[in-house]
Amino acid sequence: MGLLLLLPFFGVVCLVAGQSGPPGTTPNIQYVFEGRCWDYDETRYNGLLPRVQADCDTLWKLFFQSFSYHAPCAVNQTSYSPFLQAARQTLPQDKVMFWSGVYSLAHRFSENGVNYITLEDTLIGYLANSLVWCGQENPPGMNYSRCPDWSDCPSEASESFWAGASRTFASAAKGNVTLMVDGSNPNKPAYRRNSFFSKYELPSLDVSLVPALHVIVVHTLDKPKIETCGSGTLLDLKNDVTARGILFTCDDDPASVMHLLCADQPDSRECKLAAAHVNCELPYNSTQPGFNGQPDFLG
Amino acid sequence: MGLLLLLPFFGVVCLVAGQSGPPGTTPNIQYVFEGRCWDYDETRYNGLLPRVQADCDTLWKLFFQSFSYHAPCAVNQTSYSPFLQAARQTLPQDKVMFWSGVYSLAHRFSENGVNYITLEDTLIGYLANSLVWCGQENPPGMNYSRCPDWSDCPSEASESFWAGASRTFASAAKGNVTLMVDGSNPNKPAYRRNSFFSKYELPSLDVSLVPALHVIVVHTLDKPKIETCGSGTLLDLKNDVTARGILFTCDDDPASVMHLLCADQPDSRECKLAAAHVNCELPYNSTQPGFNGQPDFLG
Repeated sequence: MGLLLLLPFFGVVCLVAGQSGPPGTTPNIQYVFEGRCWDYDETRYNGLLPRVQADCDTLWKLFFQSFSYHAPCAVNQTSYSPFLQAARQTLPQDKVMFWSGVYSLAHRFSENGVNYITLEDTLIGYLANSLVWCGQENPPGMNYSRCPDWSDCPSEASESFWAGASRTFASAAKGNVTLMVDGSNPNKPAYRRNSFFSKYELPSLDVSLVPALHVIVVHTLDKPKIETCGSGTLLDLKNDVTARGILFTCDDDPASVMHLLCADQPDSRECKLAAAHVNCELPYNSTQPGFNGQPDFLG
Repeated sequence: MGLLLLLPFFGVVCLVAGQSGPPGTTPNIQYVFEGRCWDYDETRYNGLLPRVQADCDTLWKLFFQSFSYHAPCAVNQTSYSPFLQAARQTLPQDKVMFWSGVYSLAHRFSENGVNYITLEDTLIGYLANSLVWCGQENPPGMNYSRCPDWSDCPSEASESFWAGASRTFASAAKGNVTLMVDGSNPNKPAYRRNSFFSKYELPSLDVSLVPALHVIVVHTLDKPKIETCGSGTLLDLKNDVTARGILFTCDDDPASVMHLLCADQPDSRECKLAAAHVNCELPYNSTQPGFNGQPDFLG
Protein backbone atom coordinates (compact mmCIF):
# COMPACT_ATOMS: atom_id res chain seq x y z
CA MET A 1 0.00 0.00 0.00
CA GLY A 2 2.58 2.57 0.96
CA LEU A 3 5.19 1.39 -1.51
CA LEU A 4 5.30 4.46 -3.68
CA LEU A 5 3.89 6.77 -1.09
CA LEU A 6 6.91 8.98 -0.82
CA LEU A 7 7.81 9.40 -4.46
CA PRO A 8 5.71 12.42 -5.35
CA PHE A 9 6.79 14.17 -2.20
CA PHE A 10 10.37 13.48 -3.16
CA GLY A 11 9.51 15.21 -6.41
CA VAL A 12 8.08 18.24 -4.67
CA VAL A 13 11.00 18.55 -2.28
CA CYS A 14 13.50 18.25 -5.10
CA LEU A 15 11.66 20.87 -7.10
CA VAL A 16 11.58 23.29 -4.21
CA ALA A 17 15.13 22.76 -3.08
CA GLY A 18 16.58 22.40 -6.55
CA GLN A 19 18.25 19.14 -5.55
CA SER A 20 18.63 15.97 -7.55
CA GLY A 21 18.28 12.46 -6.18
CA PRO A 22 16.30 11.44 -3.14
CA PRO A 23 16.23 13.89 -0.23
CA GLY A 24 17.23 13.28 3.35
CA THR A 25 15.11 13.24 6.46
CA THR A 26 12.38 15.91 6.46
CA PRO A 27 13.74 19.02 8.23
CA ASN A 28 12.35 19.53 11.73
CA ILE A 29 10.79 16.08 11.54
CA GLN A 30 10.29 15.90 15.31
CA TYR A 31 8.29 19.13 15.38
CA VAL A 32 6.25 18.09 12.36
CA PHE A 33 5.58 14.63 13.80
CA GLU A 34 4.62 15.87 17.26
CA GLY A 35 2.65 18.74 15.74
CA ARG A 36 0.58 16.35 13.64
CA CYS A 37 0.09 14.23 16.72
CA TRP A 38 -1.35 17.15 18.73
CA ASP A 39 -3.52 18.23 15.84
CA TYR A 40 -4.83 14.70 15.35
CA ASP A 41 -5.43 14.29 19.05
CA GLU A 42 -7.57 17.40 19.40
CA THR A 43 -9.18 18.07 16.03
CA ARG A 44 -8.78 15.37 13.35
CA TYR A 45 -11.12 12.41 12.83
CA ASN A 46 -13.00 13.20 16.03
CA GLY A 47 -16.00 10.93 16.19
CA LEU A 48 -14.60 8.81 13.36
CA LEU A 49 -11.58 7.17 14.98
CA PRO A 50 -10.66 6.74 18.66
CA ARG A 51 -7.90 8.74 20.35
CA VAL A 52 -4.85 6.84 21.60
CA GLN A 53 -3.57 6.74 25.17
CA ALA A 54 0.10 7.47 24.50
CA ASP A 55 1.11 11.12 24.55
CA CYS A 56 2.77 12.77 21.56
CA ASP A 57 6.21 13.00 23.11
CA THR A 58 6.17 9.28 23.88
CA LEU A 59 5.03 8.44 20.37
CA TRP A 60 7.88 10.46 18.88
CA LYS A 61 10.41 8.77 21.15
CA LEU A 62 9.16 5.32 20.20
CA PHE A 63 9.20 6.24 16.51
CA PHE A 64 12.67 7.81 16.72
CA GLN A 65 14.11 4.84 18.62
CA SER A 66 12.94 2.51 15.86
CA PHE A 67 15.41 3.72 13.25
CA SER A 68 17.78 6.31 14.69
CA TYR A 69 21.48 5.54 15.10
CA HIS A 70 21.04 2.63 12.70
CA ALA A 71 22.23 2.48 9.11
CA PRO A 72 19.20 3.25 6.92
CA CYS A 73 19.26 -0.18 5.33
CA ALA A 74 19.41 -2.03 8.64
CA VAL A 75 15.94 -1.38 10.02
CA ASN A 76 13.52 -4.27 10.00
CA GLN A 77 9.78 -4.25 10.55
CA THR A 78 9.91 -5.40 14.15
CA SER A 79 11.90 -2.28 15.05
CA TYR A 80 8.69 -0.29 14.76
CA SER A 81 6.56 -2.67 16.83
CA PRO A 82 6.60 -0.64 20.09
CA PHE A 83 5.54 2.49 18.20
CA LEU A 84 2.89 0.68 16.16
CA GLN A 85 1.52 -0.96 19.28
CA ALA A 86 1.27 2.37 21.12
CA ALA A 87 -0.39 4.21 18.23
CA ARG A 88 -2.80 1.58 16.94
CA GLN A 89 -6.53 2.30 16.96
CA THR A 90 -9.64 0.20 16.71
CA LEU A 91 -11.28 0.64 13.32
CA PRO A 92 -14.98 1.00 12.52
CA GLN A 93 -16.86 -1.92 11.01
CA ASP A 94 -17.23 -2.07 7.18
CA LYS A 95 -15.24 1.12 6.54
CA VAL A 96 -11.67 -0.01 5.97
CA MET A 97 -10.32 0.70 2.50
CA PHE A 98 -7.04 -0.46 1.01
CA TRP A 99 -5.67 0.93 -2.22
CA SER A 100 -2.96 0.18 -4.72
CA GLY A 101 -1.87 2.44 -7.56
CA VAL A 102 -4.60 5.02 -6.96
CA TYR A 103 -3.46 7.09 -3.96
CA SER A 104 -5.12 10.34 -4.96
CA LEU A 105 -8.43 8.92 -6.13
CA ALA A 106 -8.72 6.54 -3.18
CA HIS A 107 -8.30 9.41 -0.75
CA ARG A 108 -10.77 11.64 -2.51
CA PHE A 109 -13.21 8.73 -2.45
CA SER A 110 -12.63 7.96 1.22
CA GLU A 111 -13.25 11.63 2.13
CA ASN A 112 -11.03 11.82 5.21
CA GLY A 113 -12.76 8.98 6.95
CA VAL A 114 -16.31 10.10 6.17
CA ASN A 115 -16.85 7.38 3.57
CA TYR A 116 -13.93 5.05 4.27
CA ILE A 117 -10.89 4.78 6.54
CA THR A 118 -7.52 4.38 4.81
CA LEU A 119 -4.19 3.75 6.50
CA GLU A 120 -3.40 7.43 6.02
CA ASP A 121 -6.49 8.37 8.04
CA THR A 122 -5.29 6.43 11.07
CA LEU A 123 -2.92 8.08 13.51
CA ILE A 124 -0.03 5.87 12.39
CA GLY A 125 -0.45 6.79 8.74
CA TYR A 126 -1.32 10.41 9.45
CA LEU A 127 1.86 10.98 11.45
CA ALA A 128 4.18 9.57 8.79
CA ASN A 129 2.41 10.37 5.52
CA SER A 130 4.68 12.28 3.11
CA LEU A 131 7.57 12.41 5.58
CA VAL A 132 11.05 11.20 4.67
CA TRP A 133 13.33 9.72 7.28
CA CYS A 134 16.33 7.46 7.73
CA GLY A 135 18.94 6.83 10.37
CA GLN A 136 22.70 7.14 10.55
CA GLU A 137 25.06 5.76 13.17
CA ASN A 138 26.52 9.14 14.13
CA PRO A 139 24.70 11.97 15.95
CA PRO A 140 22.05 13.25 15.51
CA GLY A 141 21.08 9.69 14.55
CA MET A 142 19.17 10.79 11.44
CA ASN A 143 20.55 11.59 8.00
CA TYR A 144 19.26 14.94 6.82
CA SER A 145 21.13 14.95 3.52
CA ARG A 146 20.17 11.71 1.79
CA CYS A 147 17.95 8.70 2.44
CA PRO A 148 18.03 5.64 0.19
CA ASP A 149 15.24 4.75 -2.18
CA TRP A 150 13.09 1.86 -1.14
CA SER A 151 14.54 -0.11 -4.01
CA ASP A 152 18.10 0.41 -2.75
CA CYS A 153 17.95 -2.16 0.02
CA PRO A 154 15.58 -4.76 1.46
CA SER A 155 15.36 -3.41 5.03
CA GLU A 156 15.06 0.28 4.32
CA ALA A 157 13.84 2.31 7.28
CA SER A 158 10.69 3.81 5.84
CA GLU A 159 9.70 0.80 3.74
CA SER A 160 9.92 -1.31 6.88
CA PHE A 161 7.74 1.23 8.60
CA TRP A 162 5.03 1.18 5.94
CA ALA A 163 5.12 -2.61 5.84
CA GLY A 164 4.54 -2.78 9.59
CA ALA A 165 1.95 -0.01 9.42
CA SER A 166 0.08 -1.87 6.69
CA ARG A 167 0.07 -5.08 8.73
CA THR A 168 -1.15 -3.22 11.81
CA PHE A 169 -3.91 -1.52 9.82
CA ALA A 170 -5.13 -4.69 8.12
CA SER A 171 -5.06 -6.71 11.31
CA ALA A 172 -7.48 -4.22 12.93
CA ALA A 173 -9.99 -4.36 10.05
CA LYS A 174 -13.41 -5.81 10.72
CA GLY A 175 -16.51 -6.23 8.61
CA ASN A 176 -16.52 -6.01 4.86
CA VAL A 177 -13.44 -4.28 3.52
CA THR A 178 -12.72 -2.52 0.24
CA LEU A 179 -9.73 -2.40 -2.10
CA MET A 180 -9.35 0.11 -4.94
CA VAL A 181 -6.99 -0.72 -7.83
CA ASP A 182 -6.08 0.72 -11.22
CA GLY A 183 -7.25 -1.34 -14.21
CA SER A 184 -5.77 0.84 -16.94
CA ASN A 185 -2.08 1.20 -16.21
CA PRO A 186 -0.13 -0.39 -19.07
CA ASN A 187 3.00 -0.55 -16.93
CA LYS A 188 1.62 -2.04 -13.74
CA PRO A 189 -0.95 -4.81 -13.32
CA ALA A 190 -3.98 -4.00 -11.17
CA TYR A 191 -2.92 -6.71 -8.70
CA ARG A 192 0.68 -7.70 -8.06
CA ARG A 193 1.81 -10.39 -5.65
CA ASN A 194 4.68 -8.12 -4.60
CA SER A 195 2.34 -5.25 -3.70
CA PHE A 196 1.89 -4.12 -0.13
CA PHE A 197 -1.68 -5.32 -0.25
CA SER A 198 -0.64 -8.81 -1.29
CA LYS A 199 2.40 -9.09 0.97
CA TYR A 200 1.25 -7.42 4.16
CA GLU A 201 -2.45 -6.58 4.15
CA LEU A 202 -4.28 -9.57 2.74
CA PRO A 203 -2.31 -12.00 4.97
CA SER A 204 -3.01 -9.84 8.04
CA LEU A 205 -6.80 -9.78 7.69
CA ASP A 206 -8.51 -11.67 10.49
CA VAL A 207 -10.77 -13.97 8.50
CA SER A 208 -13.02 -14.54 11.49
CA LEU A 209 -13.83 -10.81 11.45
CA VAL A 210 -13.62 -10.00 7.73
CA PRO A 211 -16.20 -11.96 5.71
CA ALA A 212 -15.78 -10.20 2.38
CA LEU A 213 -13.47 -8.05 0.30
CA HIS A 214 -15.00 -5.75 -2.28
CA VAL A 215 -12.69 -4.67 -5.09
CA ILE A 216 -13.23 -1.47 -7.04
CA VAL A 217 -11.39 -1.49 -10.36
CA VAL A 218 -10.98 2.02 -11.73
CA HIS A 219 -10.19 2.94 -15.31
CA THR A 220 -8.78 6.20 -16.56
CA LEU A 221 -11.32 8.17 -18.56
CA ASP A 222 -10.98 7.81 -22.28
CA LYS A 223 -8.35 5.06 -22.04
CA PRO A 224 -8.63 1.33 -22.69
CA LYS A 225 -9.76 -0.88 -19.84
CA ILE A 226 -6.74 -3.17 -19.71
CA GLU A 227 -7.96 -5.28 -16.81
CA THR A 228 -11.47 -5.65 -15.43
CA CYS A 229 -13.15 -7.60 -12.65
CA GLY A 230 -13.21 -10.86 -14.55
CA SER A 231 -9.86 -10.63 -16.34
CA GLY A 232 -6.12 -10.46 -15.97
CA THR A 233 -4.60 -10.15 -12.53
CA LEU A 234 -8.04 -9.66 -10.97
CA LEU A 235 -8.37 -13.42 -11.37
CA ASP A 236 -5.18 -13.89 -9.33
CA LEU A 237 -6.58 -11.56 -6.71
CA LYS A 238 -9.84 -13.50 -6.58
CA ASN A 239 -7.88 -16.70 -6.09
CA ASP A 240 -5.74 -15.26 -3.32
CA VAL A 241 -8.71 -13.75 -1.50
CA THR A 242 -10.93 -16.82 -1.71
CA ALA A 243 -7.98 -19.02 -0.70
CA ARG A 244 -8.03 -17.12 2.57
CA GLY A 245 -11.71 -17.98 3.00
CA ILE A 246 -12.87 -14.43 2.26
CA LEU A 247 -15.74 -13.73 -0.14
CA PHE A 248 -14.57 -11.83 -3.23
CA THR A 249 -16.78 -9.26 -4.94
CA CYS A 250 -15.75 -6.79 -7.62
CA ASP A 251 -17.06 -3.73 -9.46
CA ASP A 252 -15.65 -1.94 -12.46
CA ASP A 253 -16.00 1.84 -12.30
CA PRO A 254 -18.91 2.27 -9.91
CA ALA A 255 -20.85 5.46 -10.59
CA SER A 256 -19.67 7.23 -7.43
CA VAL A 257 -16.02 6.83 -8.49
CA MET A 258 -16.78 7.74 -12.09
CA HIS A 259 -18.21 11.03 -10.89
CA LEU A 260 -15.01 11.83 -9.01
CA LEU A 261 -13.03 11.29 -12.20
CA CYS A 262 -15.57 13.34 -14.12
CA ALA A 263 -15.26 16.24 -11.68
CA ASP A 264 -11.73 16.68 -13.04
CA GLN A 265 -12.64 16.03 -16.67
CA PRO A 266 -16.28 16.97 -17.11
CA ASP A 267 -15.87 17.25 -20.87
CA SER A 268 -14.99 13.59 -21.33
CA ARG A 269 -17.49 11.63 -23.33
CA GLU A 270 -18.01 9.29 -20.39
CA CYS A 271 -19.12 12.19 -18.24
CA LYS A 272 -22.17 13.49 -20.03
CA LEU A 273 -25.06 13.83 -17.62
CA ALA A 274 -28.67 13.24 -18.48
CA ALA A 275 -29.94 16.13 -20.58
CA ALA A 276 -33.14 16.41 -18.58
CA HIS A 277 -31.34 17.95 -15.63
CA VAL A 278 -29.26 20.30 -17.69
CA ASN A 279 -32.46 21.53 -19.32
CA CYS A 280 -34.26 21.87 -15.96
CA GLU A 281 -36.90 19.39 -17.05
CA LEU A 282 -36.94 17.32 -13.87
CA PRO A 283 -39.66 17.92 -11.29
CA TYR A 284 -38.48 18.23 -7.70
CA ASN A 285 -40.48 16.58 -4.98
CA SER A 286 -38.18 14.57 -2.78
CA THR A 287 -37.19 15.13 0.82
CA GLN A 288 -33.49 15.08 -0.03
CA PRO A 289 -31.62 17.20 2.55
CA GLY A 290 -29.88 20.35 1.35
CA PHE A 291 -26.21 21.16 1.81
CA ASN A 292 -27.02 21.80 5.45
CA GLY A 293 -27.68 18.11 5.81
CA GLN A 294 -24.08 17.23 5.05
CA PRO A 295 -22.22 16.17 8.20
CA ASP A 296 -19.32 18.54 7.72
CA PHE A 297 -21.26 21.46 6.36
CA LEU A 298 -20.10 24.65 7.90
CA GLY A 299 -22.18 27.64 7.00
CA MET B 1 -17.00 33.34 4.75
CA GLY B 2 -16.04 32.03 8.13
CA LEU B 3 -19.25 33.01 9.88
CA LEU B 4 -20.52 29.54 10.65
CA LEU B 5 -17.15 27.89 10.44
CA LEU B 6 -17.08 26.67 14.00
CA LEU B 7 -20.60 25.39 14.40
CA PRO B 8 -20.17 21.82 13.17
CA PHE B 9 -17.06 21.42 15.26
CA PHE B 10 -19.02 22.65 18.25
CA GLY B 11 -21.47 19.92 17.45
CA VAL B 12 -18.77 17.26 17.32
CA VAL B 13 -17.15 18.41 20.54
CA CYS B 14 -20.46 18.49 22.35
CA LEU B 15 -21.30 15.03 21.13
CA VAL B 16 -17.97 13.62 22.22
CA ALA B 17 -17.81 15.31 25.58
CA GLY B 18 -21.50 15.03 26.33
CA GLN B 19 -21.65 18.77 27.05
CA SER B 20 -24.35 21.22 26.14
CA GLY B 21 -23.77 24.77 24.94
CA PRO B 22 -20.69 26.09 23.19
CA PRO B 23 -17.34 24.72 24.35
CA GLY B 24 -14.36 26.64 25.62
CA THR B 25 -10.94 27.09 24.06
CA THR B 26 -9.65 23.95 22.32
CA PRO B 27 -7.54 21.98 24.82
CA ASN B 28 -3.79 22.24 24.19
CA ILE B 29 -4.45 24.97 21.64
CA GLN B 30 -0.85 26.16 21.67
CA TYR B 31 0.48 22.72 20.80
CA VAL B 32 -2.14 22.22 18.10
CA PHE B 33 -1.49 25.68 16.63
CA GLU B 34 2.30 25.36 16.63
CA GLY B 35 2.02 21.77 15.43
CA ARG B 36 -0.05 22.79 12.44
CA CYS B 37 2.43 25.56 11.79
CA TRP B 38 5.39 23.15 11.63
CA ASP B 39 3.44 20.71 9.49
CA TYR B 40 2.40 23.48 7.10
CA ASP B 41 5.92 24.84 6.97
CA GLU B 42 7.52 21.55 5.96
CA THR B 43 4.90 19.52 4.14
CA ARG B 44 1.62 21.24 3.30
CA TYR B 45 0.91 23.22 0.12
CA ASN B 46 4.54 23.00 -0.92
CA GLY B 47 4.83 24.41 -4.43
CA LEU B 48 1.31 25.83 -4.19
CA LEU B 49 1.72 28.59 -1.62
CA PRO B 50 4.86 30.35 -0.34
CA ARG B 51 6.31 29.72 3.12
CA VAL B 52 6.28 32.61 5.59
CA GLN B 53 9.32 34.11 7.31
CA ALA B 54 8.03 34.16 10.89
CA ASP B 55 8.74 31.07 12.97
CA CYS B 56 5.97 29.07 14.58
CA ASP B 57 6.68 30.18 18.11
CA THR B 58 6.49 33.83 17.04
CA LEU B 59 3.24 33.23 15.18
CA TRP B 60 1.68 31.64 18.25
CA LYS B 61 2.81 34.53 20.46
CA LEU B 62 1.33 37.09 18.08
CA PHE B 63 -1.91 35.12 17.86
CA PHE B 64 -2.12 34.61 21.62
CA GLN B 65 -1.41 38.28 22.34
CA SER B 66 -4.33 39.28 20.12
CA PHE B 67 -7.05 37.99 22.41
CA SER B 68 -5.58 36.63 25.65
CA TYR B 69 -6.24 38.40 28.94
CA HIS B 70 -9.12 40.24 27.28
CA ALA B 71 -12.82 39.57 27.82
CA PRO B 72 -13.98 37.42 24.90
CA CYS B 73 -16.35 40.10 23.65
CA ALA B 74 -13.74 42.86 23.72
CA VAL B 75 -11.46 41.81 20.85
CA ASN B 76 -11.67 43.85 17.69
CA GLN B 77 -10.27 43.05 14.27
CA THR B 78 -7.21 45.24 14.58
CA SER B 79 -6.04 43.17 17.55
CA TYR B 80 -5.08 40.45 15.10
CA SER B 81 -3.23 42.72 12.68
CA PRO B 82 0.33 41.88 13.84
CA PHE B 83 -0.41 38.15 13.50
CA LEU B 84 -2.17 38.52 10.16
CA GLN B 85 0.69 40.64 8.84
CA ALA B 86 3.31 38.08 9.92
CA ALA B 87 1.44 35.09 8.48
CA ARG B 88 0.14 36.51 5.22
CA GLN B 89 1.19 34.93 1.93
CA THR B 90 1.15 36.00 -1.68
CA LEU B 91 -1.54 34.14 -3.60
CA PRO B 92 -1.34 32.64 -7.09
CA GLN B 93 -3.07 34.37 -9.99
CA ASP B 94 -6.60 33.24 -10.94
CA LYS B 95 -6.86 30.62 -8.20
CA VAL B 96 -8.52 32.39 -5.28
CA MET B 97 -11.91 31.00 -4.33
CA PHE B 98 -14.38 32.44 -1.83
CA TRP B 99 -17.38 30.51 -0.60
CA SER B 100 -20.55 31.11 1.34
CA GLY B 101 -22.91 28.45 2.64
CA VAL B 102 -21.05 25.58 0.95
CA TYR B 103 -17.99 24.87 3.12
CA SER B 104 -17.72 21.18 2.42
CA LEU B 105 -18.40 21.28 -1.32
CA ALA B 106 -16.15 24.29 -1.87
CA HIS B 107 -13.25 22.52 -0.23
CA ARG B 108 -13.76 19.32 -2.14
CA PHE B 109 -13.87 21.39 -5.31
CA SER B 110 -10.75 23.37 -4.45
CA GLU B 111 -8.83 20.13 -3.76
CA ASN B 112 -6.39 21.45 -1.15
CA GLY B 113 -5.08 24.16 -3.39
CA VAL B 114 -4.71 22.00 -6.49
CA ASN B 115 -7.70 23.58 -8.23
CA TYR B 116 -8.31 26.66 -6.10
CA ILE B 117 -6.96 28.37 -2.99
CA THR B 118 -9.47 29.04 -0.21
CA LEU B 119 -8.82 30.98 2.99
CA GLU B 120 -8.53 27.65 4.80
CA ASP B 121 -5.67 26.63 2.48
CA THR B 122 -3.60 29.65 3.47
CA LEU B 123 -1.43 29.48 6.57
CA ILE B 124 -3.72 31.88 8.44
CA GLY B 125 -6.81 29.81 7.78
CA TYR B 126 -5.04 26.48 8.18
CA LEU B 127 -3.77 27.37 11.65
CA ALA B 128 -7.15 28.43 12.98
CA ASN B 129 -9.61 26.24 11.08
CA SER B 130 -11.93 24.33 13.46
CA LEU B 131 -10.25 25.69 16.59
CA VAL B 132 -12.21 27.38 19.35
CA TRP B 133 -10.65 30.13 21.42
CA CYS B 134 -11.48 33.09 23.60
CA GLY B 135 -9.78 35.14 26.27
CA GLN B 136 -10.40 35.87 29.92
CA GLU B 137 -8.84 38.53 32.10
CA ASN B 138 -7.41 36.09 34.67
CA PRO B 139 -4.59 33.61 34.09
CA PRO B 140 -4.05 31.61 31.93
CA GLY B 141 -5.62 34.33 29.77
CA MET B 142 -7.83 31.88 27.86
CA ASN B 143 -11.18 30.45 28.89
CA TYR B 144 -11.15 26.69 28.54
CA SER B 145 -14.69 26.13 29.81
CA ARG B 146 -16.89 28.34 27.64
CA CYS B 147 -16.53 30.73 24.72
CA PRO B 148 -19.44 32.87 23.52
CA ASP B 149 -21.24 32.26 20.28
CA TRP B 150 -20.48 34.71 17.52
CA SER B 151 -24.01 35.98 17.84
CA ASP B 152 -23.52 36.80 21.53
CA CYS B 153 -21.52 39.98 21.00
CA PRO B 154 -20.26 42.20 18.19
CA SER B 155 -16.52 42.01 18.95
CA GLU B 156 -16.21 38.31 19.69
CA ALA B 157 -12.64 37.05 19.62
CA SER B 158 -12.89 34.44 16.90
CA GLU B 159 -15.39 36.30 14.73
CA SER B 160 -13.01 39.27 14.75
CA PHE B 161 -10.24 36.91 13.74
CA TRP B 162 -12.14 35.47 10.78
CA ALA B 163 -13.21 38.93 9.70
CA GLY B 164 -9.59 40.10 9.66
CA ALA B 165 -8.44 36.87 8.04
CA SER B 166 -11.05 37.25 5.30
CA ARG B 167 -9.94 40.82 4.63
CA THR B 168 -6.29 39.76 4.50
CA PHE B 169 -7.09 36.90 2.14
CA ALA B 170 -9.20 38.97 -0.24
CA SER B 171 -6.71 41.84 -0.31
CA ALA B 172 -4.02 39.45 -1.58
CA ALA B 173 -6.17 38.06 -4.42
CA LYS B 174 -5.11 38.74 -7.98
CA GLY B 175 -6.47 37.71 -11.34
CA ASN B 176 -9.95 36.34 -11.86
CA VAL B 177 -11.48 35.11 -8.63
CA THR B 178 -14.29 32.66 -7.93
CA LEU B 179 -17.15 32.58 -5.43
CA MET B 180 -19.27 29.51 -4.73
CA VAL B 181 -22.74 29.98 -3.20
CA ASP B 182 -25.80 27.86 -2.41
CA GLY B 183 -28.85 28.52 -4.59
CA SER B 184 -31.20 26.06 -2.95
CA ASN B 185 -31.30 26.88 0.74
CA PRO B 186 -34.83 27.96 1.64
CA ASN B 187 -33.61 29.56 4.87
CA LYS B 188 -30.64 31.56 3.60
CA PRO B 189 -30.36 33.55 0.39
CA ALA B 190 -27.41 32.73 -1.87
CA TYR B 191 -26.01 36.24 -1.34
CA ARG B 192 -26.49 38.24 1.83
CA ARG B 193 -25.18 41.74 2.44
CA ASN B 194 -24.29 40.70 6.00
CA SER B 195 -22.18 37.76 4.81
CA PHE B 196 -18.44 37.69 5.28
CA PHE B 197 -18.02 37.87 1.53
CA SER B 198 -20.11 41.00 1.30
CA LYS B 199 -18.76 42.73 4.39
CA TYR B 200 -15.07 41.88 4.31
CA GLU B 201 -14.01 40.17 1.09
CA LEU B 202 -15.66 42.02 -1.75
CA PRO B 203 -14.65 45.42 -0.31
CA SER B 204 -11.05 44.21 0.15
CA LEU B 205 -10.49 43.09 -3.44
CA ASP B 206 -7.92 45.27 -5.21
CA VAL B 207 -9.86 46.21 -8.35
CA SER B 208 -6.66 47.09 -10.17
CA LEU B 209 -5.57 43.44 -9.81
CA VAL B 210 -8.92 41.60 -9.93
CA PRO B 211 -10.68 42.14 -13.26
CA ALA B 212 -13.48 39.61 -12.83
CA LEU B 213 -15.44 37.58 -10.31
CA HIS B 214 -16.92 34.29 -11.43
CA VAL B 215 -19.82 33.01 -9.37
CA ILE B 216 -20.74 29.34 -9.17
CA VAL B 217 -24.30 28.80 -7.95
CA VAL B 218 -24.79 25.25 -6.70
CA HIS B 219 -28.10 23.51 -6.21
CA THR B 220 -28.79 20.49 -4.05
CA LEU B 221 -29.59 17.43 -6.13
CA ASP B 222 -33.26 16.71 -6.46
CA LYS B 223 -34.32 19.98 -4.81
CA PRO B 224 -35.82 23.12 -6.33
CA LYS B 225 -33.44 25.74 -7.66
CA ILE B 226 -34.58 28.63 -5.52
CA GLU B 227 -32.10 31.17 -6.87
CA THR B 228 -30.08 31.04 -10.08
CA CYS B 229 -27.55 33.27 -11.82
CA GLY B 230 -30.15 35.66 -13.17
CA SER B 231 -32.53 35.74 -10.23
CA GLY B 232 -33.05 36.65 -6.60
CA THR B 233 -30.08 37.79 -4.56
CA LEU B 234 -27.69 36.96 -7.39
CA LEU B 235 -28.93 40.20 -8.93
CA ASP B 236 -27.87 42.08 -5.76
CA LEU B 237 -24.50 40.38 -5.97
CA LYS B 238 -24.10 41.37 -9.60
CA ASN B 239 -24.91 44.96 -8.68
CA ASP B 240 -22.44 45.04 -5.80
CA VAL B 241 -19.66 43.45 -7.87
CA THR B 242 -20.12 45.65 -10.92
CA ALA B 243 -20.40 48.72 -8.68
CA ARG B 244 -16.82 47.99 -7.63
CA GLY B 245 -15.78 47.95 -11.29
CA ILE B 246 -15.33 44.19 -11.41
CA LEU B 247 -16.74 42.09 -14.25
CA PHE B 248 -19.44 39.68 -13.04
CA THR B 249 -19.89 36.24 -14.59
CA CYS B 250 -22.03 33.41 -13.27
CA ASP B 251 -22.69 29.70 -13.84
CA ASP B 252 -25.38 27.48 -12.41
CA ASP B 253 -24.20 23.97 -11.53
CA PRO B 254 -21.18 23.59 -13.80
CA ALA B 255 -20.56 19.96 -14.72
CA SER B 256 -17.43 19.61 -12.60
CA VAL B 257 -19.36 20.58 -9.46
CA MET B 258 -22.34 18.44 -10.44
CA HIS B 259 -20.05 15.43 -10.58
CA LEU B 260 -18.82 16.07 -7.04
CA LEU B 261 -22.42 16.09 -5.82
CA CYS B 262 -23.13 12.98 -7.87
CA ALA B 263 -20.16 11.15 -6.32
CA ASP B 264 -22.15 11.23 -3.06
CA GLN B 265 -25.52 10.46 -4.66
CA PRO B 266 -24.85 8.54 -7.85
CA ASP B 267 -28.42 7.24 -7.96
CA SER B 268 -29.96 10.68 -8.31
CA ARG B 269 -31.79 11.24 -11.56
CA GLU B 270 -29.49 14.15 -12.33
CA CYS B 271 -26.46 11.88 -12.16
CA LYS B 272 -27.10 9.36 -14.87
CA LEU B 273 -24.09 9.06 -17.11
CA ALA B 274 -24.20 8.44 -20.82
CA ALA B 275 -25.11 4.82 -21.43
CA ALA B 276 -22.42 4.41 -24.07
CA HIS B 277 -19.67 4.36 -21.44
CA VAL B 278 -21.50 2.09 -19.07
CA ASN B 279 -21.98 -0.37 -21.94
CA CYS B 280 -18.34 -0.08 -23.02
CA GLU B 281 -19.37 1.19 -26.44
CA LEU B 282 -16.92 4.08 -26.64
CA PRO B 283 -13.73 3.61 -28.64
CA TYR B 284 -10.55 4.72 -26.91
CA ASN B 285 -7.96 6.56 -28.91
CA SER B 286 -6.95 9.69 -27.06
CA THR B 287 -3.67 10.57 -25.41
CA GLN B 288 -5.34 11.27 -22.07
CA PRO B 289 -2.83 10.58 -19.28
CA GLY B 290 -3.54 7.75 -16.85
CA PHE B 291 -3.77 8.10 -13.10
CA ASN B 292 0.00 8.45 -13.12
CA GLY B 293 -0.49 11.80 -14.79
CA GLN B 294 -2.26 13.26 -11.78
CA PRO B 295 -0.03 15.65 -9.88
CA ASP B 296 -0.52 14.03 -6.51
CA PHE B 297 -0.62 10.45 -7.68
CA LEU B 298 1.37 8.25 -5.41
CA GLY B 299 1.75 4.71 -6.51
